[in-house]
Amino acid sequence: MPADVTLYGAKTGNCLRVAIALEELAIAHQVVKLDLRAGEQRTPDFLSLNPSGKVPVLRVRSSAAPPLVLAQSNAILLYLARRAGGRLLPPETDASAPFALERFFFFVTDVIAPSHAAFFLKNKGCEEGQRLMERRSLEMLLASERFLQNAPFMAGQSFTLADIAAVSIVAAQSPSIDWARYPQLQRWFAAVMARPSIERGMIAFD
Amino acid sequence: MPADVTLYGAKTGNCLRVAIALEELAIAHQVVKLDLRAGEQRTPDFLSLNPSGKVPVLRVRSSAAPPLVLAQSNAILLYLARRAGGRLLPPETDASAPFALERFFFFVTDVIAPSHAAFFLKNKGCEEGQRLMERRSLEMLLASERFLQNAPFMAGQSFTLADIAAVSIVAAQSPSIDWARYPQLQRWFAAVMARPSIERGMIAFD
Ligand SMILES: N[C@@H](CCC(=O)N[C@@H](CS)C(=O)NCC(=O)O)C(=O)O
Ligand SMILES: N[C@@H](CCC(=O)N[C@@H](CS)C(=O)NCC(=O)O)C(=O)O
Repeated sequence: MPADVTLYGAKTGNCLRVAIALEELAIAHQVVKLDLRAGEQRTPDFLSLNPSGKVPVLRVRSSAAPPLVLAQSNAILLYLARRAGGRLLPPETDASAPFALERFFFFVTDVIAPSHAAFFLKNKGCEEGQRLMERRSLEMLLASERFLQNAPFMAGQSFTLADIAAVSIVAAQSPSIDWARYPQLQRWFAAVMARPSIERGMIAFD
Repeated sequence: MPADVTLYGAKTGNCLRVAIALEELAIAHQVVKLDLRAGEQRTPDFLSLNPSGKVPVLRVRSSAAPPLVLAQSNAILLYLARRAGGRLLPPETDASAPFALERFFFFVTDVIAPSHAAFFLKNKGCEEGQRLMERRSLEMLLASERFLQNAPFMAGQSFTLADIAAVSIVAAQSPSIDWARYPQLQRWFAAVMARPSIERGMIAFD
């Protein structure tokens, strides 16, 4: 991708997953940090990039085409995976491609989404709801122990978007996990966290 | 797709979206209805198909290959769209392909996920949380009025997965929408609901 790539974001799970994908694919890029508490996502400049005033946003400029400006962390992840020719998802022609997406969506909709709901409820002062959604997220997350029983990664033999989705939320939930009861998750987490790309991606917005 | 296609599901948003996609693509298929209250998703037979005991599940049998058994509604939707050669998403080579995914994920993660959280909290008896998450889902949904300002469909000139994701949740939230204030959404909803495939898909599990 010989282009000028910029990731706009902040230190949140949605943004970290994109930063990790860029690092895994060794795509040269700049990071622009926004201070969400200071409302930098609502400046006229940023709103002209993304009218919904949310991060992450990926901008890809190349001499050949008009710039691509893409929001929605998951759309960005799929875009990057497609362009990487099967390095974060099996190629379309591979029979295991739908399955890797199945595992990716498990984390996105069944683990990460409840955790976002918990965060939202916390900000609204609804502690009971927060607690219920956090517990739900953790319970679903721990079900992934089964995915790792006979495979090194969340969707089988290779590292995919499912692992990127998983690692951000496992890292966040890590203090709540009774690790001794989840040996597969523990060995997966140690292996994934040791990848240089993950280390670099995790600190992209520090 | 000259194959034997079966959709296992129940009358829930996740399952209806898949039913609608199959109808839009005119893919011949059988529907197997599960009674979730009676626990039919946890029979040994169904668990052998999907060990996580959730619907929807799509099974595609063909003489050429081992059967594909796919869970996660969104993975199924992307699988169907890919195989349909650009009929529910622009082809990969089209510059607007990432954008259609952006809009699809807006509905999946910012509108539908909060609504799932509301449903979960309701079942747990947490009324305050339920109300907050429902309001959040509706607020995000109504922001899509803007998407329709200069376009017939949620992601531009053609009907895509973004419209399928949107229609299921707009139909569910319909009584809470102050329609007069959302003229674009209103004309979009009327047009989309009049598609024969949507009519058929919506009643797939009745
Ligand atoms: N579903 C979107 C969510 C985007 C989103 O809500 N981003 C948050 C940070 S993770 C944000 O920008 N919040 C600031 C605001 O809403 O003002 C995604 O996956 O990118
Ligand atoms: N993220 C999954 C969610 C699957 C899911 O939770 N399905 C529900 C019905 S919509 C279910 O099977 N519930 C029954 C149960 O959990 O026992 C998807 O999109 O398919």
